[in-house]
Amino acid sequence: MTTPTMKAVNYVGPRKVKVEEVEKPRIEHPDDVIFKITTAAICGSDLHMYEGRTAAEAGITFGHENMGIVEELGQGVTLLKKGDRVVMPFNVADGRCRNCEEGRTAFCTGVNPGFAGGAYDIFPTGWHGVEISGFQPGESVAVFGAGPVGLMAAYSASIRGASRIYVVDSVPERLKVAEKIGCTPIDFTKGDAVDQIIESNGGMVDRSIDAVGYQASAKGGNAEQPNIVLENMIQVTRACGGLGIPGLYVPSDPGAPDEASKKGMLSLSFGKLFEKGLSVRTGQCNVKAYNRYLRDLIIAGKAKPSFVVSHEIAIEEAEVAYDKFARRIDGYTKVLIHPNGGF
Amino acid sequence: MTTPTMKAVNYVGPRKVKVEEVEKPRIEHPDDVIFKITTAAICGSDLHMYEGRTAAEAGITFGHENMGIVEELGQGVTLLKKGDRVVMPFNVADGRCRNCEEGRTAFCTGVNPGFAGGAYDIFPTGWHGVEISGFQPGESVAVFGAGPVGLMAAYSASIRGASRIYVVDSVPERLKVAEKIGCTPIDFTKGDAVDQIIESNGGMVDRSIDAVGYQASAKGGNAEQPNIVLENMIQVTRACGGLGIPGLYVPSDPGAPDEASKKGMLSLSFGKLFEKGLSVRTGQCNVKAYNRYLRDLIIAGKAKPSFVVSHEIAIEEAEVAYDKFARRIDGYTKVLIHPNGGF
Amino acid sequence: MTTPTMKAVNYVGPRKVKVEEVEKPRIEHPDDVIFKITTAAICGSDLHMYEGRTAAEAGITFGHENMGIVEELGQGVTLLKKGDRVVMPFNVADGRCRNCEEGRTAFCTGVNPGFAGGAYDIFPTGWHGVEISGFQPGESVAVFGAGPVGLMAAYSASIRGASRIYVVDSVPERLKVAEKIGCTPIDFTKGDAVDQIIESNGGMVDRSIDAVGYQASAKGGNAEQPNIVLENMIQVTRACGGLGIPGLYVPSDPGAPDEASKKGMLSLSFGKLFEKGLSVRTGQCNVKAYNRYLRDLIIAGKAKPSFVVSHEIAIEEAEVAYDKFARRIDGYTKVLIHPNGGF
Amino acid sequence: MTTPTMKAVNYVGPRKVKVEEVEKPRIEHPDDVIFKITTAAICGSDLHMYEGRTAAEAGITFGHENMGIVEELGQGVTLLKKGDRVVMPFNVADGRCRNCEEGRTAFCTGVNPGFAGGAYDIFPTGWHGVEISGFQPGESVAVFGAGPVGLMAAYSASIRGASRIYVVDSVPERLKVAEKIGCTPIDFTKGDAVDQIIESNGGMVDRSIDAVGYQASAKGGNAEQPNIVLENMIQVTRACGGLGIPGLYVPSDPGAPDEASKKGMLSLSFGKLFEKGLSVRTGQCNVKAYNRYLRDLIIAGKAKPSFVVSHEIAIEEAEVAYDKFARRIDGYTKVLIHPNGGF
Repeated sequence: MTTPTMKAVNYVGPRKVKVEEVEKPRIEHPDDVIFKITTAAICGSDLHMYEGRTAAEAGITFGHENMGIVEELGQGVTLLKKGDRVVMPFNVADGRCRNCEEGRTAFCTGVNPGFAGGAYDIFPTGWHGVEISGFQPGESVAVFGAGPVGLMAAYSASIRGASRIYVVDSVPERLKVAEKIGCTPIDFTKGDAVDQIIESNGGMVDRSIDAVGYQASAKGGNAEQPNIVLENMIQVTRACGGLGIPGLYVPSDPGAPDEASKKGMLSLSFGKLFEKGLSVRTGQCNVKAYNRYLRDLIIAGKAKPSFVVSHEIAIEEAEVAYDKFARRIDGYTKVLIHPNGGF
Repeated sequence: MTTPTMKAVNYVGPRKVKVEEVEKPRIEHPDDVIFKITTAAICGSDLHMYEGRTAAEAGITFGHENMGIVEELGQGVTLLKKGDRVVMPFNVADGRCRNCEEGRTAFCTGVNPGFAGGAYDIFPTGWHGVEISGFQPGESVAVFGAGPVGLMAAYSASIRGASRIYVVDSVPERLKVAEKIGCTPIDFTKGDAVDQIIESNGGMVDRSIDAVGYQASAKGGNAEQPNIVLENMIQVTRACGGLGIPGLYVPSDPGAPDEASKKGMLSLSFGKLFEKGLSVRTGQCNVKAYNRYLRDLIIAGKAKPSFVVSHEIAIEEAEVAYDKFARRIDGYTKVLIHPNGGF
Repeated sequence: MTTPTMKAVNYVGPRKVKVEEVEKPRIEHPDDVIFKITTAAICGSDLHMYEGRTAAEAGITFGHENMGIVEELGQGVTLLKKGDRVVMPFNVADGRCRNCEEGRTAFCTGVNPGFAGGAYDIFPTGWHGVEISGFQPGESVAVFGAGPVGLMAAYSASIRGASRIYVVDSVPERLKVAEKIGCTPIDFTKGDAVDQIIESNGGMVDRSIDAVGYQASAKGGNAEQPNIVLENMIQVTRACGGLGIPGLYVPSDPGAPDEASKKGMLSLSFGKLFEKGLSVRTGQCNVKAYNRYLRDLIIAGKAKPSFVVSHEIAIEEAEVAYDKFARRIDGYTKVLIHPNGGF
Repeated sequence: MTTPTMKAVNYVGPRKVKVEEVEKPRIEHPDDVIFKITTAAICGSDLHMYEGRTAAEAGITFGHENMGIVEELGQGVTLLKKGDRVVMPFNVADGRCRNCEEGRTAFCTGVNPGFAGGAYDIFPTGWHGVEISGFQPGESVAVFGAGPVGLMAAYSASIRGASRIYVVDSVPERLKVAEKIGCTPIDFTKGDAVDQIIESNGGMVDRSIDAVGYQASAKGGNAEQPNIVLENMIQVTRACGGLGIPGLYVPSDPGAPDEASKKGMLSLSFGKLFEKGLSVRTGQCNVKAYNRYLRDLIIAGKAKPSFVVSHEIAIEEAEVAYDKFARRIDGYTKVLIHPNGGF
C-alpha cells in the first residue's frame, strides 16, 4: 500500500522554494484534528526565512494543500518542520476550534501549528497595531508601511472610526490601494513624510503605527535605515499620543547595515519622545484576542479584507510567486494560494 | 433710547410656548462672551418641562436667536430663566471657547452653530451611550429607542465598528431612518423585541443601550412601563456584556404611572443581571470628553449626523413645532430652528 | 480486595450533613490529576445548599479529606455529586496546575471540580469585589458585610491603597476583625449605616462593595430585605462612583420573603442611581485572573489572609461546625477543616 | 512709604544661589490669590538650572518665604523670573483652590504647605511612575534611582500593593531609606543590577520604573551613560511587562558625554524590547490627576511621605543646602525650607 501524498511548498535554501509531494497527515492522538485548507497565503514573515535573514535549515515545508488558513482572515503558508504532523496538536486545536461551526471543516481563525517563524494573520496584526497605539475613535492616524499589515492597520483604523488616516510608502501600487480604502497616501520619495502629513492634517496626528519594522529604508534609496520609521513616528505624533509597533524588530539581525543594528540596537530621539510624553507599545499580536470580533465583522459584511489580495494562484505557481513577492515586483502585494487537491 | 430686543421662545405653561420679544444680551464682565447662534434645535429634554413633568415656572425663555447653549448639559434650545443674561459666564466661556477659531463666532465645542447638522448634543450623548456600554469594535449592539439620541447611538456604534446594530422602536418613520443608516430595525409592536433580536442575531448581543429612559412604554399601548427597556436589556445582553444607560431616569417623577416609579424606584431582574455578570453604566454625557473627536469626524466627512434632522423651521414656527415634536406626529423627529435676525 | 475509602462530608438534607466513608478517587484518564488536600474550608456558598435554598438532592458529598483547597488562599469544601471522581478532569487540571511547583502536590490556587454551586475562593472574590467597584488607589470604600468575603474585600482594598475603609455588619465578632485589619466598623443596628459612614468620612465614599447578596437583612431584625444593601450603596456612593457586587444574587429564590424576590426581582432607586451617574458591575469572580497576584503577595508576606480564620477543626467535627457556621454563633466566621488521613 | 519685602533664594549663576530681599506680592486682578507658604523644598529639577544644564539667566528667583508653587509642574521652590508676581494667576488659582478648606490658607491641591512631609511634587511624580509602568496590585517592581522621586515611586508601589520592590542606587544613605520602607536595596556597584534583581526575585519583575533620567551613570564611575537605566529596564522586565519613565530626558543636553546624547538621542536594544512585547510610557506627571488621592491617603494616615526628608532648614541656610544637595553629600537627600517670616 502506498502512502498517500499531497503537494507542499518546501524551503530549499535562501531565495529558493520548491513544490514537492509530501506525506498526508494522520490522526495520531484522540484529540487531534485534521484541517482541510481551502486557501493559504504568502506571508511577509515567510520572507525572513526565504531571504536567509533567520537561521532556517533547508528541507522545511512552507505549507501545503491541506494546511494554512481557511478563510480570508488568515494568512498562513506556514513553516512546518519537515515530517511534522499536519494535524493540530490537541491542546492547540482545543482553543482554535472553539469557533468552528458544526458540519464545516472550515472557519477556524488562525491555524499555525508548530511554526518556526512568523506571525500569522495580517488582519488581526493590523488591528493589533491600532489597538496598541492607544487609538480612540475619532482620532487621526499615520500608518508607516503599505504592505499587507500596514494596509490592514489602516483599514482597521477606518472601521474603528478614525477621522483621518495617512499611509506612508514608496510603492505606487500599494499607495493606490491605500487611497482606494479611503486613506491619504504619503509617498516618502516625494518629500519628508512627517512634513507631508503635518501639512495635510493641519498638525500632528494622534497615533502612529509602524507596519514596517527593522528593514525600513529611507527616502530615495534601498539602503536600510532601521530607525527611520520610529524617528518619523516620534516627530509626527502629538504630545501625549501613542506609537503602536506591530512591525517586526529583532534582537539580532545578521543582515543589518551596521554593527549596532546587528545587535538589535537602534538610536532613538528619546529626549523628544520623553518631552512629548509619548507611549510606545510593541509586540506580536495575540490573535485570539481579536479573532472573534474580526470574524463577526467579516460575516456581517462590515469588513472585507480581501481588498488586499493582488494575486490568486495554484500551488504549482508558488515558486514564482515567492520570488516576485520577495522582490516586490509586478504588483505582488498579497498572494493567495489555492491548493487544488484535497483529502 | 429703546432697549434692543430679539425673539425668544418662552415657556408659558404645560404644553404651551410662545415666541416673544426679549432684551438683547449685554457684556457685563470683562470675561463674558456673546455668541451669535445661527441654528438651534428642539431637544427631547425640553419636553420634560414642556409637558409639565418637571417643576418649571411659566415665563422661562426656551432660547432665542442669539442664544444656544449655556448649560454644560444643554442642547440647542436651552431653558433660561427670564431675564438671565444671554452671555456666557466667563468660567463657562473659558472652556467652551477653547477650540474656537480666530475670527469666527462659530465652532466652539459645546456650542453647535458651526455645523449644519445641528446635532450638537444628541451626537455626543449617543456616542456616550456606546462608550458606557463598554463597547469594543466588532461587537453587536442593541439600541432601545430610535429618537434622536437612539439614532445617534446607533450611528456612533456604526462609526466605531459595530458588527451588527439593532434599533428598537415602534414609530415607522424612526425605524426607517435606522434602516437607512445600516441598522436592523426592530418594531416591538410586531413581537417581543428580545426574541426578534436574538433570532436575527443568532444569539444575544454584546452590548445594549437605553436611549429611552423612564418614560418607556410597552408593546401595543401608550401606558408607561418604566422598567420595560431595562428588563429587555438584561434579557438580550450576553453574559459579561454591558448595559449603557444615557437615557434619562429621574429620582422623582410626579407623572409616573405608579407609586414606586413616582419615587424613582424600578423593579429589576437583579438576580438575572448578577447571574450574567453584566455591567451597568449610567449618567449624563460629559460632552467635553467627546467633542473634539466628533468635531474631527464631522470636518473630515466621516460623520454626517445631519441625517437625523426631519424639519428646519424659522423661529416663528416654534410653537407649532414644539406641539408636533411632543406628540411625535407628522414625522417631527428632530427640528432645527433658524433664527432669522441677528445682532 | 477491598475498595480503599476515605472520609467525606455528605449532604443528607436541609440543615443536615454527615461524615461518612466514601471510595477513594482513581486515575481514569491519562490527563487526570489527583490532589492531596491538606486543608479545606466551609464556604458561605455551601449554606445555600445546606439551608435548602437551592435545589440539591440528598447524597451529595460536600468535600472530603483529599479534596478542597491546599493553601490558605482557598476555600473549598466543594460540592461533589456522589460518586464523582475526585481527580481533576484534564481540561481543568491543565489550567489549575499551571502554578504548581514541581515536587509538591500542593499550592494550586483554587481547585473546584464539578461544582454544583458556590464560588470558591474568598480572597480572590473579595479582591474581585474591589476590582469591579472601579476602585483606584487612594479612594475610600464602604464594604457591606463582614463575612469572609466582605473581610477579604476590605483587606484587599487595604492592600491596594484605600484611604479609608468602612465595613458594615451587625455581628460584633466580625466587626472586631474588621477593626483589627485597620477598617472602621459600622454596626447597622446602632443607626443608619449610610448616615454613620457619611458622618465618619466627611462625605460619601468613592466605591461601595456588596459582600452580602440577596439574603440581606435590615436593621434590628432577621427578616430578609433583599434590596437593602444595594439601596444603601446607591445612597452612600459619590456621584460618578462605582458599585461592585460580588455578593450572590440569584435569578430565582424559593425562600425569598416576597413574590418579586422569589423571581429574582428587586426594587431599586434607579432614578437616583442614574442621577448620580453610578457604575454597577456584577458577577462571580474569575479566579484565574487574580491568583497569580495573590499568590505572590502571600509568598512575599505582604498578604496574610489567614486572619479571617476563626476555627480549625478535624473532619469529624464538620457536622457541628456546619451548624454553628450556618447560625453564625460562637464566632464561627471561617472554619478550616484538616483531614487527618491521606492516600 | 517703603515697599514691603521678604526673603527669596535667587539664582546668581551656575552653582551659585543667594538669599536676598525681594518685593512682596500684590493683588492685581480680582481673581488673584496670594498664598502663604509655610514650607518649601529643594527639588532635583532645580539642579538642572543650578548646575547650568539648562539655559537660565542670572537673577531668577528660586522661591521665597511666601511662595510655593506657581507652575503646574512645579515643586516646592519654584523658579520665578525676577519681578514676577507671587500671586496665583486666576485661571490657575481657580483649579488649585478647588479643594481648599474654608478658613485655612493651606491645603490646596497643587500647593503643599498644609502637610508636614513637604513631599508635594515628588510624591505624585513617584506615584505617576508606578501608574505609567502599567502596574497592577500584586506585581513586582524594580525602581531605578533612590533619590526622592525613586523613593516615592517605591513607596507608592508599596501602598498600591506591590508584592516585591527592588530599588537600585549606589548611595548607601538612599539605599538605607529604601530598606526602611520595606524594599530590597540593590547596590549596582556591587554587581550587575539586573543579575541581582533576577536572582533575588527568582525571575524578572513585572514592571520597572526609571527615576534617574538622562544623567545616569554606570557601575563604578561617575561618567554619565545616558542609556544605562533604560537598557537595564529592558533586560529586567518580563515579557509583556511595562516600563514607566517619569525620570527626565531632554531633547537637547549641552552637557552630555557624547554627540548623540547632546541631541537627545539614545541607543536602545529595541529588538529585545520588541521581542518581549514591552510597553513604554513616558512623560511628566499630571499632578492634578493624583493629588486628591494622595491628599486623602496622607490625611487618613495611610501615607507618610515625610520619611524622605533628610534635612529641615531656615531660608538663610539655602545657599549651603543647595550646594550639598547638588553634590549629594552629607546625606542631603531631601531638604525642606521653612521661611521664618510672613505677611
